[in-house]
Amino acid sequence: MITGKNHIGNRLSALGSKTYKTFNPQSNIENGHVFSEASKDEIDEAVNLAAEAFKAFRTISGVKKAVFLRAIADEILNLGDALLDTYCSETGLPKGRAEGERGRTVFQLRTFADLVEKGSWVEASIDTAIPERTPVPKPDLRKMSIPIGPIVVFGASNFPLAYSTAGGDTAAALAAGCPVIVKSHPMHAGTGELVASAVVRAGQDTDMPNGVFSNLNSSGIEVGQHLVQHPKVKGVGFTGSIRGGRALYDLAAKRQEPIPVFAEMGSINPVVLLPEALKKNIDGWAETYAKSITLGTGQFCTNPGLLLGIKSDALDEFIKKLADGIVHIEPGCMLHPNIFGAYEKNKSRALAQSELSLVADFENHVTTNYARQALAKVDGADFLENLSLHQEVFGPFSIVVQCEDVKELELVISKLEGQLTGTLIVDNKEMIEYQSIIEALKNRVGRIIFNGVPTGVEVCPSMTHGGPYPASTDSRFTAVGIHSIKRWVRPFSFQDWPNDLLPEELKNENPLKIKRLVNGEWTNNKI
Amino acid sequence: MITGKNHIGNRLSALGSKTYKTFNPQSNIENGHVFSEASKDEIDEAVNLAAEAFKAFRTISGVKKAVFLRAIADEILNLGDALLDTYCSETGLPKGRAEGERGRTVFQLRTFADLVEKGSWVEASIDTAIPERTPVPKPDLRKMSIPIGPIVVFGASNFPLAYSTAGGDTAAALAAGCPVIVKSHPMHAGTGELVASAVVRAGQDTDMPNGVFSNLNSSGIEVGQHLVQHPKVKGVGFTGSIRGGRALYDLAAKRQEPIPVFAEMGSINPVVLLPEALKKNIDGWAETYAKSITLGTGQFCTNPGLLLGIKSDALDEFIKKLADGIVHIEPGCMLHPNIFGAYEKNKSRALAQSELSLVADFENHVTTNYARQALAKVDGADFLENLSLHQEVFGPFSIVVQCEDVKELELVISKLEGQLTGTLIVDNKEMIEYQSIIEALKNRVGRIIFNGVPTGVEVCPSMTHGGPYPASTDSRFTAVGIHSIKRWVRPFSFQDWPNDLLPEELKNENPLKIKRLVNGEWTNNKI
Repeated sequence: MITGKNHIGNRLSALGSKTYKTFNPQSNIENGHVFSEASKDEIDEAVNLAAEAFKAFRTISGVKKAVFLRAIADEILNLGDALLDTYCSETGLPKGRAEGERGRTVFQLRTFADLVEKGSWVEASIDTAIPERTPVPKPDLRKMSIPIGPIVVFGASNFPLAYSTAGGDTAAALAAGCPVIVKSHPMHAGTGELVASAVVRAGQDTDMPNGVFSNLNSSGIEVGQHLVQHPKVKGVGFTGSIRGGRALYDLAAKRQEPIPVFAEMGSINPVVLLPEALKKNIDGWAETYAKSITLGTGQFCTNPGLLLGIKSDALDEFIKKLADGIVHIEPGCMLHPNIFGAYEKNKSRALAQSELSLVADFENHVTTNYARQALAKVDGADFLENLSLHQEVFGPFSIVVQCEDVKELELVISKLEGQLTGTLIVDNKEMIEYQSIIEALKNRVGRIIFNGVPTGVEVCPSMTHGGPYPASTDSRFTAVGIHSIKRWVRPFSFQDWPNDLLPEELKNENPLKIKRLVNGEWTNNKI
Repeated sequence: MITGKNHIGNRLSALGSKTYKTFNPQSNIENGHVFSEASKDEIDEAVNLAAEAFKAFRTISGVKKAVFLRAIADEILNLGDALLDTYCSETGLPKGRAEGERGRTVFQLRTFADLVEKGSWVEASIDTAIPERTPVPKPDLRKMSIPIGPIVVFGASNFPLAYSTAGGDTAAALAAGCPVIVKSHPMHAGTGELVASAVVRAGQDTDMPNGVFSNLNSSGIEVGQHLVQHPKVKGVGFTGSIRGGRALYDLAAKRQEPIPVFAEMGSINPVVLLPEALKKNIDGWAETYAKSITLGTGQFCTNPGLLLGIKSDALDEFIKKLADGIVHIEPGCMLHPNIFGAYEKNKSRALAQSELSLVADFENHVTTNYARQALAKVDGADFLENLSLHQEVFGPFSIVVQCEDVKELELVISKLEGQLTGTLIVDNKEMIEYQSIIEALKNRVGRIIFNGVPTGVEVCPSMTHGGPYPASTDSRFTAVGIHSIKRWVRPFSFQDWPNDLLPEELKNENPLKIKRLVNGEWTNNKI
């Protein structure tokens, strides 16, 4: 049941005076529930509870954390159609997408449950003492990852489940042993509250300390700002715009004690079309990219916003076919009138640049909040000059950059900002011939794709979802997959600690049977 | 031979007009060599060369990097007495210390050589494709760590070899595949130049690209500022004061593209004296700590600057014995008149606080630049009130905090800033009884020591040298040990990449026979 209240730990609370509603972009009307924005006192209470909960939660066993994470997954499924219906009414997305994203969310929670239950993720390392060493004895040192403290998670507009309330950031933080305070996304506050209720129920049922999870409603930027500046908050996870992510990063960097902010932000996901590969399959690539550009109404962080090619008849034909493909796809509803408005504004701003020419525009009548997909083209030299064209237009819009030659193509790639992904359309011969192009692209991205599309982010250990700034604020981490837990932990060493008082992970007997680096060798054995 | 010039890649250069000399604190006179500070053009040239070198260096095999790192170690040893003599003349430290630190430096370089030669450090992860999966096929994803780009390393005043020119930060960055530009420490510019010449020779002899290493002289803050703000610099390693490290962190955070700064900064390394353990061995602990506080004239980042106990006769006696021990130790020479001056100033400022009372002060005549060690005490409540007493006094000076009871002791610990280390003097019964004290201490430090001293930082995989701010700017990393390489790498994923064009680390055949996570299982096998 949606109450419109905040979850301050296990308690529902609505002390603030500011209220707001969510919006159904399909029917173009506000949804009924009234949400109460968290007051300053409520925010402080949530953070204080989290700091208190951390004292117990940071040493809870992996097995218990796994029970908690699995209970969250089960409780989310228990929400049934109420969750799916709310999701659809707050996003305009179809039920199939809601189900798919719920599946991904549950899968992430269970994957982290498996990870912490097995326990080897702590990267235990043991160097045993050498008392007889000269000139000084070698002490016994044992290291493992421990949680850094309460984490604030900002829900993403475009993934109400998988990247929001109990999404990847939250699952990773809880798995690490960090309490989480969610800054709920205002566009899907009802979905958020339902998921939050599932997390709270799971926490109570599995005896987690009160405050291990809170969910704060917020319609503007104040709640988030207050959270990021709170001295007891020790890390931030964010998925959203460059402007929003950078603002939080700057706030965190200015704190007396700076804290890590992992913000996954904008990306235009360049696709490099090499001539031979393109020529061989113009129709196929045009069809594939018409779909990829418009998938989910272009509202994915890995949407291909930039197609880079070398001027040729084949490229001309590809542009024509892609344009044709794009205008024949049915427009989709965007997540919210504000997102639709931003899309129209940013698309118009891009198209107002004299260097850019429109090659495809869906001109038929569309329903309110439905996005008209579009495709434009620009010369390489002009693209290099006009940095405004390097900015993301969130939605079903792409630009084809027509380079004079390989040299210009390499220059364009090297001048791109950091990206989540880079894609190569390439044949085997070109993989050798265009090595410098490929290397230049690798240096700008977190993931490189061979003859495919950037949309679709597989949840698996080998995924990197991140990349050089501004794809993320710290390229040394990924936001997706089990290794995203590394964002929320720090190494910690025990020196000469009595064996029976060490954490299970570091005891001689290796009771958890985890993989450990013992005197330089990886082993599951006891010492 | 010392020329006083900068190493801009493989070339010596002295275009700047600003010059300076180093100083011998033992003889209290300037050393003879004149060093030329790097000009803006020289800085830019070094960074541009590094960015160019990165194109080749980032894909050089681990085997070749190992050859380079070992050659650096050999070339440093080849410098022979010239290096040791210069070291001593620029630091006032004894030759034995110079030899010990050289050994540590060479050991670090060789350890990183072994690490990258073996190759498993890249944390390779492979998830093979499932083309038949529904609703969408699973792509083939393969991930490994790759270098982030040119790194600026700031030499430390107190470790001219192990934490400077070719010290831990540089060794880790080169091992990762990142070119290094060293901002040489002005106090030991000659030592720095000699080591730089060894690195450059090693690079030439092992065919490394020009620009993989540069060494820039600098007497003030401008060279460092310019380096950290340079768009082609991608990371910063620093060891030194909180003020210096924070200034660099702030500069890096304000860049258009923020970059990671790992600054290892101040620490007062609290030692908690629990009553029973102390009572049993008052003489022993007093003697041990008199030595630890004055070791290396207190010029270690792990120097125990704070001793925390509960008021008792035993604590009074410990203070008396410790004071007695301290004043009977021969004073040592500090690294530089400026460091000596700062010690005297900071010690006086601390002692000027009315809450603090001096309990030991070496009052005999000392040679110029020799530090008078001192010990002071303060009540717990006063320490909690007066935050200036929480600040590091770099040198042989410690404060004993006398708490009223366990509760006050826990409060004092919880109010401490982040620390590199925390030490417990404790008996087995107290390990159980004082769990909340121990947990509070763990939450403030990077390494916790059982019945020992914080001085002495073992170089081994299980070491954490870092900790919550301000011990470091990012507690998620260590500055010492093989895992310090993680500061300079990022995960990178290949999707559906042709097997024969993958890096060796990710090929099906596993030609390097490294440990990889393949479909969720760690294995050295091929696929």
